[in-house]
Amino acid sequence: MSEQIDCDLLILGGGIAGLTAAIYGTRYNLKTIVVAKSFGGTANLAGHIENWPGFTGTGMELLQKVYQQAKDHGAELIEEEFNNLTKENDYFKLTLKDKEIKAKSLIIALGMQHRKLDVKGEKELVGKGVSYCATCDGMFFKNKTVLVVGGSDSAAKAALYLSEIAKKVYIAYRKSEMRCEPISLQKLKGKENIEINYFSNPVEILGDKKVTGIILKQDNEKDSKTIKLDVDGIFIEIGATPFIDVVKPIGVSLDEKGFIITNKDSKTNIPGVFAAGDNTNTGFKQLVVGAGEGALAAKSAYDFIRFGK
Amino acid sequence: MSEQIDCDLLILGGGIAGLTAAIYGTRYNLKTIVVAKSFGGTANLAGHIENWPGFTGTGMELLQKVYQQAKDHGAELIEEEFNNLTKENDYFKLTLKDKEIKAKSLIIALGMQHRKLDVKGEKELVGKGVSYCATCDGMFFKNKTVLVVGGSDSAAKAALYLSEIAKKVYIAYRKSEMRCEPISLQKLKGKENIEINYFSNPVEILGDKKVTGIILKQDNEKDSKTIKLDVDGIFIEIGATPFIDVVKPIGVSLDEKGFIITNKDSKTNIPGVFAAGDNTNTGFKQLVVGAGEGALAAKSAYDFIRFGK
Repeated sequence: MSEQIDCDLLILGGGIAGLTAAIYGTRYNLKTIVVAKSFGGTANLAGHIENWPGFTGTGMELLQKVYQQAKDHGAELIEEEFNNLTKENDYFKLTLKDKEIKAKSLIIALGMQHRKLDVKGEKELVGKGVSYCATCDGMFFKNKTVLVVGGSDSAAKAALYLSEIAKKVYIAYRKSEMRCEPISLQKLKGKENIEINYFSNPVEILGDKKVTGIILKQDNEKDSKTIKLDVDGIFIEIGATPFIDVVKPIGVSLDEKGFIITNKDSKTNIPGVFAAGDNTNTGFKQLVVGAGEGALAAKSAYDFIRFGK
Repeated sequence: MSEQIDCDLLILGGGIAGLTAAIYGTRYNLKTIVVAKSFGGTANLAGHIENWPGFTGTGMELLQKVYQQAKDHGAELIEEEFNNLTKENDYFKLTLKDKEIKAKSLIIALGMQHRKLDVKGEKELVGKGVSYCATCDGMFFKNKTVLVVGGSDSAAKAALYLSEIAKKVYIAYRKSEMRCEPISLQKLKGKENIEINYFSNPVEILGDKKVTGIILKQDNEKDSKTIKLDVDGIFIEIGATPFIDVVKPIGVSLDEKGFIITNKDSKTNIPGVFAAGDNTNTGFKQLVVGAGEGALAAKSAYDFIRFGK
């Protein structure tokens, strides 16, 4: 028979947003439980972090500190996969292997996953020249040569940002023209150190301990060939998906890209349900932004539980 | 003759929000200048900090790290008082003693000031039992006796929050009834460890190295007397004012309490003007929330400068 646990605040997700929410939830004397498939989130993938105020080190080091801090504050931290969340009359129910958690409020902080190319060398070289975040990692490529994969506005903006840091920026896109906003395209054309390769599909990322190049297969109407470019860094900008399948059944409103719509107080459309971090529709995916949203979500959960709003 | 400096991003204010914005502004390759009357902001007043993810220590230690980080990133940090900001056609102009700064975009991160009682002992005992933030400092008063000064909804909520931590919570309010929301009043009445003293004005905070008590002058229609209460902590919740006189002339929209109205991207009503931290109308004044807003404001400033939106 499974154990029944009642709590005030259930947080789904163990990255920076969820753990910061846990720190604040417990500071507000809410009985707080965090359930995560694994703790640390995408920060665990970050090598050296320079953009967390007051800290330098690896993402894993930072998140381990925050994990311990949430634990010391009294949050219960459960590492387990889960897929069974329901909304009952006045509580949310999460069914785990040997537990059933009933919570008065819910914070969704499940993060997102960058879409992968699924080519040889990609997985092996993440953090060694392969990146999914130009803002996070661009600075490591001063005066170097990088390549951006993708044709969206995000890809264009990543290339423009990188063109101010790197010596040379290639773009590889599979179609015949970029699908970014006109102003981004105009800017791209004005940059002498950006070179766009159309009809280009990455087939392999080269390098042993770090990225040294990429092989692109170029197919257009006329011919098909394979080229190799020497690059130090590869930024894969082909989209991202939030990890929120588990919360979709409760009816949380999503934007056109599938991210949870939140207001400035981290509220969603459902009373008692809040969201924070990379799974929200906030336009800037950064650790410190997610942490701020986590704190706001916990404050809003407290107001909801104690004052009904 | 004064020196002329052009920059992309001018940040007013040197607390956590302004310095985090500076880190992100420079990461975005914006020429970034921060001007502050003094660096560190209200965090400098915080003794021990437990609610900054990944850090424990004093507020000053944390902010010194962040200051150094902004400097290492290449931000120019100027410590000087200022009162002459104007909006010209397509830039903002700040006149300093011997410099004139012209900036394409502006982030307002000037913080706020809690209203003071202006009684003997208050200033001397800040951080030694006198606090202006229950969420920040409440946890230091587990099973102790505290007093909240004020009758607003914030004061009521501070008392309710503290009643779950402290053994006993007094409220001192100068009028005949609390002016908080009805639900807060109902909750206050339901708490056995909260005692409201009406017609009560603090006249002196007692204590040498730490707070030991408070003297209240009680004047009602019938009589006037002076009482002394033994307390370990005093939370002064009589409002706050943002430090934004200098930016009022440029026409930034304020809420009914005088705080700058921002959206989720930290934008204000004026193109090119962003705001972050305690001077905004965000409903939760915490370091990590201000830092998140600072990062968002810098991202929005970058988008404004490079893409005109």
